[in-house]
Amino acid sequence: MKVLIVHAHPEPKSFSSAMKNTAVEAFTQQGHSVQVSDLYAMHFNPVASADDFQKRANPDYCVYALEQRHAVSAGTLSQDIQDELGKLLWCDLLVLNFPIFWYSTPAILKGWIDRVFVSGATYGGKRFYDRGGLVGKRALVSVTLGGQEHMFGEQGVHGPLEDMLKPLLQGTLGYTGFSVHPPFFGWHIPYLSDSERASVMQAWRNRLAGLHEERNWWPQPTLDDFDERLYRLRKQQP
Amino acid sequence: MKVLIVHAHPEPKSFSSAMKNTAVEAFTQQGHSVQVSDLYAMHFNPVASADDFQKRANPDYCVYALEQRHAVSAGTLSQDIQDELGKLLWCDLLVLNFPIFWYSTPAILKGWIDRVFVSGATYGGKRFYDRGGLVGKRALVSVTLGGQEHMFGEQGVHGPLEDMLKPLLQGTLGYTGFSVHPPFFGWHIPYLSDSERASVMQAWRNRLAGLHEERNWWPQPTLDDFDERLYRLRKQQP
Repeated sequence: MKVLIVHAHPEPKSFSSAMKNTAVEAFTQQGHSVQVSDLYAMHFNPVASADDFQKRANPDYCVYALEQRHAVSAGTLSQDIQDELGKLLWCDLLVLNFPIFWYSTPAILKGWIDRVFVSGATYGGKRFYDRGGLVGKRALVSVTLGGQEHMFGEQGVHGPLEDMLKPLLQGTLGYTGFSVHPPFFGWHIPYLSDSERASVMQAWRNRLAGLHEERNWWPQPTLDDFDERLYRLRKQQP
Repeated sequence: MKVLIVHAHPEPKSFSSAMKNTAVEAFTQQGHSVQVSDLYAMHFNPVASADDFQKRANPDYCVYALEQRHAVSAGTLSQDIQDELGKLLWCDLLVLNFPIFWYSTPAILKGWIDRVFVSGATYGGKRFYDRGGLVGKRALVSVTLGGQEHMFGEQGVHGPLEDMLKPLLQGTLGYTGFSVHPPFFGWHIPYLSDSERASVMQAWRNRLAGLHEERNWWPQPTLDDFDERLYRLRKQQP
């Protein structure tokens, strides 16, 4: 398996960064090929702009997705995007590893998605969800956070964390066609003792060891349930 | 009323940018004070990092929220964050105006939130939701997108757009104490005719004209329903 780990934590000595290192080790020991995009270490530019295109389809008015489609066919994406898109298209498994910032990804990772999930290459037209450009690939989201698990149950003060991650799990990964593993949550990390942290890391190791066999995908829409205008089809009565 | 408009679109001639200009005009004509943070025009840095603190509480290991709290009390936040935090604390109404990128904010706006919603100044400890640091302020989210409204109903292929915006409407704005207006959605913008666009802009103008009188807030959790450990309190039987 070819594995791309995209990691976004500002502190190289953080638990999240240790999780990234553990994942590199585990996948390598399993015989997989591994590439890592450590976005902070790369000083990755997260701001989508007209500068992302070496030649513009319309130099006077930038519609970002249209410029993406033009640049894909013309081969004029900026070099940093081409490099990351190459890794994304190369991989069989994408791991997004990050600390929860405001119930979602840190901006540097949001910008990696904004710029690298290129229209025309990863989706486009009616190519989304189970007809997306990245069908056949798997994705795993692994996060750390300060909150405790009971704050995020159906009865928790914030509601399910999975609901907060819907723009990522469904709206981004599912949308482009990934089969999405259930996320891995490292709860309450800044407040854990060393032995509690070691338990979380062991749970992460165990998860990685069995990942290849997992088939319990995160539920996604299927376009078969919708008509050409994307209205839901009425189920036929039996 | 003091109004802060935070705007994030890479194209100054876009419909989203025109909505920002319309809002500035409308609020000014209503006699309100208006400040604008046009994040692309400002080249705002969206990447939260150790560089955000002029002096570190712990120079060897950066826990971002702890450094924020230290820097608030010591007055050592970086100047760009202090400037934006000053505007945030100044305003009575915050307007976040942006195009939907991957069912959420463009990275440059996500980073404005990551860096400017400072722990210790906007929330902290048990100061969140209806006890948040920004209680008494209002917020309005106004977005443009390519999708059509029927794709986002309960029966739509993507599910309700409000669900996708939960990390922002509840997890960020509600969390810090804002009373949140129902969002304004500019559907299908790139594909509309000029007259259809004019109708959307008129709907936006009408919304702004009546905004001050609106009281139908987006539902948020209240801490009164939870105990000290943030477990939900059982309702007493009548």
